[in-house]
Amino acid sequence: MAKLNWGMIGGGEGSQIGPAHRLGAQADGNFVLAAGALDVDAEKGRAYAQSLGVAADRAYAGWQEMLDGEKDRTDRVDLVTVATPNSTHFEITRAFLEAGFNVLCEKPMTMTVEEGEEIVRVAEASGKICAVNYCYSAYPMVREMRQMVKTGQIGKVRLVVANFSHGHHGDAGDADNPRVRWRYDPAMAGVSGQFADCGIHALHMAGFIAGDEVRSLSADFASTIPSRMLEDDAMVNFRMEGGTVGRLWTSSVAIGRQHGFDIQVFGETGGMRWASEQPNQVFYTPVGGRTQIMEKGEGGLSDEATRLSRVAIAHPEGFPLAVANIYVDLAAAIRGETRDALPFAVDGLRSMAAVYAAVDSAKADGAWVDARPPILR
Amino acid sequence: MAKLNWGMIGGGEGSQIGPAHRLGAQADGNFVLAAGALDVDAEKGRAYAQSLGVAADRAYAGWQEMLDGEKDRTDRVDLVTVATPNSTHFEITRAFLEAGFNVLCEKPMTMTVEEGEEIVRVAEASGKICAVNYCYSAYPMVREMRQMVKTGQIGKVRLVVANFSHGHHGDAGDADNPRVRWRYDPAMAGVSGQFADCGIHALHMAGFIAGDEVRSLSADFASTIPSRMLEDDAMVNFRMEGGTVGRLWTSSVAIGRQHGFDIQVFGETGGMRWASEQPNQVFYTPVGGRTQIMEKGEGGLSDEATRLSRVAIAHPEGFPLAVANIYVDLAAAIRGETRDALPFAVDGLRSMAAVYAAVDSAKADGAWVDARPPILR
Amino acid sequence: MAKLNWGMIGGGEGSQIGPAHRLGAQADGNFVLAAGALDVDAEKGRAYAQSLGVAADRAYAGWQEMLDGEKDRTDRVDLVTVATPNSTHFEITRAFLEAGFNVLCEKPMTMTVEEGEEIVRVAEASGKICAVNYCYSAYPMVREMRQMVKTGQIGKVRLVVANFSHGHHGDAGDADNPRVRWRYDPAMAGVSGQFADCGIHALHMAGFIAGDEVRSLSADFASTIPSRMLEDDAMVNFRMEGGTVGRLWTSSVAIGRQHGFDIQVFGETGGMRWASEQPNQVFYTPVGGRTQIMEKGEGGLSDEATRLSRVAIAHPEGFPLAVANIYVDLAAAIRGETRDALPFAVDGLRSMAAVYAAVDSAKADGAWVDARPPILR
Amino acid sequence: MAKLNWGMIGGGEGSQIGPAHRLGAQADGNFVLAAGALDVDAEKGRAYAQSLGVAADRAYAGWQEMLDGEKDRTDRVDLVTVATPNSTHFEITRAFLEAGFNVLCEKPMTMTVEEGEEIVRVAEASGKICAVNYCYSAYPMVREMRQMVKTGQIGKVRLVVANFSHGHHGDAGDADNPRVRWRYDPAMAGVSGQFADCGIHALHMAGFIAGDEVRSLSADFASTIPSRMLEDDAMVNFRMEGGTVGRLWTSSVAIGRQHGFDIQVFGETGGMRWASEQPNQVFYTPVGGRTQIMEKGEGGLSDEATRLSRVAIAHPEGFPLAVANIYVDLAAAIRGETRDALPFAVDGLRSMAAVYAAVDSAKADGAWVDARPPILR
Repeated sequence: MAKLNWGMIGGGEGSQIGPAHRLGAQADGNFVLAAGALDVDAEKGRAYAQSLGVAADRAYAGWQEMLDGEKDRTDRVDLVTVATPNSTHFEITRAFLEAGFNVLCEKPMTMTVEEGEEIVRVAEASGKICAVNYCYSAYPMVREMRQMVKTGQIGKVRLVVANFSHGHHGDAGDADNPRVRWRYDPAMAGVSGQFADCGIHALHMAGFIAGDEVRSLSADFASTIPSRMLEDDAMVNFRMEGGTVGRLWTSSVAIGRQHGFDIQVFGETGGMRWASEQPNQVFYTPVGGRTQIMEKGEGGLSDEATRLSRVAIAHPEGFPLAVANIYVDLAAAIRGETRDALPFAVDGLRSMAAVYAAVDSAKADGAWVDARPPILR
Repeated sequence: MAKLNWGMIGGGEGSQIGPAHRLGAQADGNFVLAAGALDVDAEKGRAYAQSLGVAADRAYAGWQEMLDGEKDRTDRVDLVTVATPNSTHFEITRAFLEAGFNVLCEKPMTMTVEEGEEIVRVAEASGKICAVNYCYSAYPMVREMRQMVKTGQIGKVRLVVANFSHGHHGDAGDADNPRVRWRYDPAMAGVSGQFADCGIHALHMAGFIAGDEVRSLSADFASTIPSRMLEDDAMVNFRMEGGTVGRLWTSSVAIGRQHGFDIQVFGETGGMRWASEQPNQVFYTPVGGRTQIMEKGEGGLSDEATRLSRVAIAHPEGFPLAVANIYVDLAAAIRGETRDALPFAVDGLRSMAAVYAAVDSAKADGAWVDARPPILR
Repeated sequence: MAKLNWGMIGGGEGSQIGPAHRLGAQADGNFVLAAGALDVDAEKGRAYAQSLGVAADRAYAGWQEMLDGEKDRTDRVDLVTVATPNSTHFEITRAFLEAGFNVLCEKPMTMTVEEGEEIVRVAEASGKICAVNYCYSAYPMVREMRQMVKTGQIGKVRLVVANFSHGHHGDAGDADNPRVRWRYDPAMAGVSGQFADCGIHALHMAGFIAGDEVRSLSADFASTIPSRMLEDDAMVNFRMEGGTVGRLWTSSVAIGRQHGFDIQVFGETGGMRWASEQPNQVFYTPVGGRTQIMEKGEGGLSDEATRLSRVAIAHPEGFPLAVANIYVDLAAAIRGETRDALPFAVDGLRSMAAVYAAVDSAKADGAWVDARPPILR
Repeated sequence: MAKLNWGMIGGGEGSQIGPAHRLGAQADGNFVLAAGALDVDAEKGRAYAQSLGVAADRAYAGWQEMLDGEKDRTDRVDLVTVATPNSTHFEITRAFLEAGFNVLCEKPMTMTVEEGEEIVRVAEASGKICAVNYCYSAYPMVREMRQMVKTGQIGKVRLVVANFSHGHHGDAGDADNPRVRWRYDPAMAGVSGQFADCGIHALHMAGFIAGDEVRSLSADFASTIPSRMLEDDAMVNFRMEGGTVGRLWTSSVAIGRQHGFDIQVFGETGGMRWASEQPNQVFYTPVGGRTQIMEKGEGGLSDEATRLSRVAIAHPEGFPLAVANIYVDLAAAIRGETRDALPFAVDGLRSMAAVYAAVDSAKADGAWVDARPPILR
């Protein structure tokens, strides 16, 4: 199969997420990096792109130049990844969609609900793919959990308990560190800190596995380091459309938790739990029975799990390959196959609506509020 | 040292908690079972007490008879354990305290806040010990955590996250099982189901370790099995007097969790976590450092932890010996030593106030309410 | 049921194993400490016994005095526990058996194979119980594993892999510490260090679970701290009578392992593993299937496991209650019931034969040698 | 940096190891697949290579054709990976080395010690890189352990305990399955089954971390499924040049173990353990201190660990990226940097010598034999 052409905006030298995308796009041989506007510093970006093998005329100074340069090429990029600072996602994603490109946007897709709604509309109008990088949902065993719910293996889902807590912002002495500070500064981070940063991964996964969507929520936010203007710890209770109860805790001051993203899903006839630090296993318990350890790569798993696993049972696959799985599905979708487990623009919109709802609820002392975007009510 | 005389009310043949108390009281040779009114069926209770070595004239038909029989003896029991159905705790505990006995009462100490306040008053007036069996607080490593907070090893406590969730009531088909049903029936269980049953253990421990008390809370209750009149799943957010943020999740429908009582305590300079299924370890992380595995019995622990451990490091000690530790401390307190880590009547009262506060909050859609008993505001 | 009278030799104030025996004998109300010769210092021993409730005339100055004092009493002790220094076990155990007492002897039962054979003969002639405190075999889930093998749930046992390794003697600077040194000094410890101290627990358990006995073995001993005259690390390969292959590693210099006693049993149709630091679970895997987590106290376990568990599922029970389980079974056996899972004198003898065989093999560069006691070949 | 040209022999459609190599070589953008002879079926191989982007004239029918086609090109491949059936590794590797290519050979590098010695000589003469794919040694935390030993953090290494055991060949009914059977058939697998297949990974890692080499060994082999001509379970005791004691257990009938490759390293002042199923952590214990959990990506690790980690702390990286790390180091070495932690031909040779030594020892009832290749004695 011919490789697809891939373009990247942001993710330049020294960025955290850039390497994960490059590895993700190239690991399975689906994409070749054909164009890029990798850095806000135009020259640095052009040089870096070329060092990665991009031809000089496709190593762009900025995203607008890239849009102009690519849109009329016959070998234009098949997919654009947007990995720029959060506040620019909306504008870039919209522009590329409008020009008929497929886009993978880093989260958060937008800074407001209105922007999110616009992306959804633009994506629909364009007929192109607009995906959002909720990459944890592409772990094979997370896909397996979703299939287990879908096929009724745990019955109706009663309860979802999700956590995404770490302690890497727990040092008050670090509060002025620019890598940390911006996340709690409304001028840069928007209306929410930790919930918008990490919590929405967990919220997306809750809906993803349960096969349902959040309808209403009640939030309790805290800035446990008092100098912070935005929350560094949040608890969000929610209800899904089908009545499922949800509990979501997210924190950045949970010293000792490293990457504490885990989820428990409890249904009428069984329960499951998964943790991102050991992503290749699911602990599944049928009601009245023993807990069983399910392994990535074991026989009998769903096709969704099996086709996203590259090596044999108990050979761990980690975070970069979860990102790669997003690209595997994007490549398939671009080539015309159906990949409905991909996180799309509507998921990015729902997240943004949930963030604003949580902020409103927290300000209103935990009052229950509608968590749905207006156009989806 | 002469053994202390011990009397037991309830906990007869076939009861779950009876054996734990008998083992707890006798394991370390502090108490000898000298009197008992073990069963609501007087004859059965008298026979069973005698089979356990109680003299015929101290094998009583009921608690009133025991009170009458013991109160004027010179060798009267030094401690009475009340392990009867919940609704009778108040009356029995009050009566024995008023007659000058030391009492260990099973939780919940009372069914209402007012009763709780009365027990506190009566206990104070009597000058006797009134303890409540929050036995998890007597695990050596839980005591260690309390000492670590007290001595500043994790700095000011910012956040406590406690869970007490299991899945043993997760089978809807079991809803009519009398061993399960009563817990969700207000006629028998009172105003709260799972929170009053398990959650208050976690709430007590949060305060116990943090060295602080809950001031206000906001609750979300759910009956995920719809036939239930009381909650089988609850989330309670709280704030302590000193500002510590609290999160407490408790559930009885978390299929796959067996005895999921665990707690995480996060301070300015470190974090700790403990889980009741592996009670002999604490995972401690200094801010910016590596997680360390602390072991019961290791060198350098506090006296509170060391004196409650019987066997060498990594030889596990379990639940029955946590109960036994309550008796170890009670024996010491009866003999005149100070044992301020024991859970006393005031702790039983605070729990009851928190239960009512949570019920009120849940009914008011999560409104924040005062969680303190009126006499302690 | 009337309590049984219990006598103890050794285990005085400050001993490690004494408290475990006292708790074990008394926890379930089967035994009352009626007589004792607790200390090599006669006065200290008598005083301590009385402080534990022993009558003055049964607080003996030494084991011979106790034998004389007890043997003609009508209320003589029903069971004598021998918890003295290793080199005295043989003489005391033999004397009490010959006088018609039931005996529980600490391990090692004797210092030589010949002594072991004599104990077996004397015990048989006496018609009394002579048990050896291989207490790990009395954990409920270890009993369950034995039953699973017996009932064919994992098919014929192909392979047993057992480890008993810790790191508490890993500090060379500690080599002169008297609490450590004696274990590696032939004058006090006999022919073997770590294998005789810890390894034989693992070897006993291998036979106990597999329902088979070691026939031959090959050993590799090392003194990784060169000043030691006896081994601090040993590997023993063995074959059982039925052909099962065995691997046993034991070490006292495995820094970081605390109480690393674990066992894996692999049969034709399944595998199981258990670890003493988490003794309430067994991980069981049917061939071709998923690993299942079995819990002490779950429904459907064997009677052997169920009757030795005191509290509900996932309420951990630990080491002292495993010792207590030995006493539970001893009480039953004394009262006339069959308790064939108890470790008896023959097991103590087999251990001693294995120790000598391992020493011989290690000296002969790992040559395979017969591991059976002569009288059992 | 310009990409390096990479060629692959074997690893065609449906192979297990092929995808891991392709991902490994391409994940970090160092190599581009420029040539290949991927399949024993020439047409299938050529078609598959072209589907992966190889130009038609470099999609070869076989390795000899590839050698002929590449050797005179100015853009000849910079590295050849040999992932063909075991018995062909020697011939192909030798031929490419002799023609001046760098080679990465799958393990086992050869089938005999003599062949291994020849590869070492040829590689030396060629001045080219000949690496062997002991990919586990390229996990960041394994590299960290090696550095810890090298810098004296655990003192002199006393003891290494390594296991590589799984249960995937535990079903006797599967013994005729061709995917399983060949491994126990001397005609195809050579002199050893499980030890040659998995054990040598563990043996290599023992030397790799300890910074030492095996000098002598004693082995016990068993065919627990009797129809097998080669061992499916083996225990190997060894001594390193510096006196370190080694224990290595490997099994393919350990039902319930999935990919049980783990290692424990014990020195004078500390111990460490690592397990391949959780490869991003090391448990490190300083003598007399608490166990610390080290995490891939934490601050303060060695450069060896840091430069092989792609994503932040506690974002797991798995097996395919360990293979990728081999390619990262190969790319650096080809570009002229020093990468002495790569496994080279001499390591492949040592493994083969150890396999033959173990076979000899097992046949001689565990006699200790020299494990070194003749040219390295």
